[in-house]
Amino acid sequence: MAAQPVNVLITGANRGLGLEMVKQMVEAPCPVRKLFACCRDPHGPRAEALQALAKKHPGIISVIRLDATDLCSIKDSAQLVGSMVGTGGLNLLINNAGMMAKGTLRDTTPEDMQSTFNTNVMGPMNMIKEFLPHLRAAVQANGKPGMSCNKAAVISISSVLGSLDLVKQTYALFPAISYRISKTSLNMLTACAAEELKEDGILFSVLHPGWVRTDMGGDAGEIDAPESVQGMLRVIASLTEQHNGAFLDYKGKPVPW
Amino acid sequence: MAAQPVNVLITGANRGLGLEMVKQMVEAPCPVRKLFACCRDPHGPRAEALQALAKKHPGIISVIRLDATDLCSIKDSAQLVGSMVGTGGLNLLINNAGMMAKGTLRDTTPEDMQSTFNTNVMGPMNMIKEFLPHLRAAVQANGKPGMSCNKAAVISISSVLGSLDLVKQTYALFPAISYRISKTSLNMLTACAAEELKEDGILFSVLHPGWVRTDMGGDAGEIDAPESVQGMLRVIASLTEQHNGAFLDYKGKPVPW
Repeated sequence: MAAQPVNVLITGANRGLGLEMVKQMVEAPCPVRKLFACCRDPHGPRAEALQALAKKHPGIISVIRLDATDLCSIKDSAQLVGSMVGTGGLNLLINNAGMMAKGTLRDTTPEDMQSTFNTNVMGPMNMIKEFLPHLRAAVQANGKPGMSCNKAAVISISSVLGSLDLVKQTYALFPAISYRISKTSLNMLTACAAEELKEDGILFSVLHPGWVRTDMGGDAGEIDAPESVQGMLRVIASLTEQHNGAFLDYKGKPVPW
Repeated sequence: MAAQPVNVLITGANRGLGLEMVKQMVEAPCPVRKLFACCRDPHGPRAEALQALAKKHPGIISVIRLDATDLCSIKDSAQLVGSMVGTGGLNLLINNAGMMAKGTLRDTTPEDMQSTFNTNVMGPMNMIKEFLPHLRAAVQANGKPGMSCNKAAVISISSVLGSLDLVKQTYALFPAISYRISKTSLNMLTACAAEELKEDGILFSVLHPGWVRTDMGGDAGEIDAPESVQGMLRVIASLTEQHNGAFLDYKGKPVPW
């Protein structure tokens, strides 16, 4: 049976996979109750599509300013979201915001490494830490045993490029060493959080969205954002305690570490 | 048949595993030719044991100032080492310098994450990039096919704690989340470098030294530094192109990613 989250937060919600997730979640036959769609600049030109969507669903979507590389910004948004969800808490946190630098070892600079680490690793880590009270509140409010996104879950968007097992098959085609290191780090963060917080009833998983035709994935991608997101939302809804700490693709297939 | 490197560089050579490596390498029946023993403060009180050892083997050991978190310092030492090895190049670079913060997700600060990333990931990455010309020179000078530490190899000291596969078994006993993330990152860096530079004939591997009774490993460790280093040096000498990109423990047993 598919679980349905009540209150959801998505980072990087103004474009690509994030925007498509917002769209599918509010247009579902049985939509979520509150959807916090976060982006760095909610009033800038790159958030126009998200704002238009929010206008169509004013009771559900709240567009929230959040810069995942700025701890103060994360703290502010955690406080705001807390005041809006109250004791119901936050059921589903989707760490979707991310960046990619495509270089090889030779042409990757320390600056590439640092900015990718800040956005793709420190961002999700600080999100988890600051939103933990609201995830715990959701567990309390739910009251049922087991794990699901109806209770409390953190889903982080990783990539098959973060798989150590698959480097030999994928490196020549797509080096992106700073991105790979950041996604492996995100996988480790998730595996550790899953262990540390399992007694709290909060589920943690990492998903590979497929190679998607977005600004990040480029035109040569294999699938479009709607297909990827449809798959990921189905996978998220199917997750139970058996998937705590798992790395799955958008079809639900396990990805090797 | 065991291979023997000619010119070797070790970071973090003033104590723990690094110091023990220097000791065993110069005291071997057939010692290395040149051993660059690097540490942050060669004239400080923490380098006294290394300096005493260097005095006993003045023709072999050169104690060199190198701070792996400082790119300028790495560039300076690469220039110095280059001038000392000439066209013979550097056969073996051992990225041994590292640090550990032991916290859980809850008590790990952004500062812990940053300093561990700087020392354990950016350090080895910048070492590889800056010493690459000297590793290439060693490949040229050697002229034989295949891979070995007699030709050119980069060995980075990782840890079983960086294994994603083993988080469930090891996390409760030893969380150290920032350290785990840094060692998984070092593993990914190594796997990528192995792929990118395989045509150059340079071998890359990561080693788990065992749980060693050192300042870092603590008193509860399972083995002493001499046993760990004896094992690792035997493993390093046995490496061939089949082990390029591998993650092995000090007994030569593969560690799962």
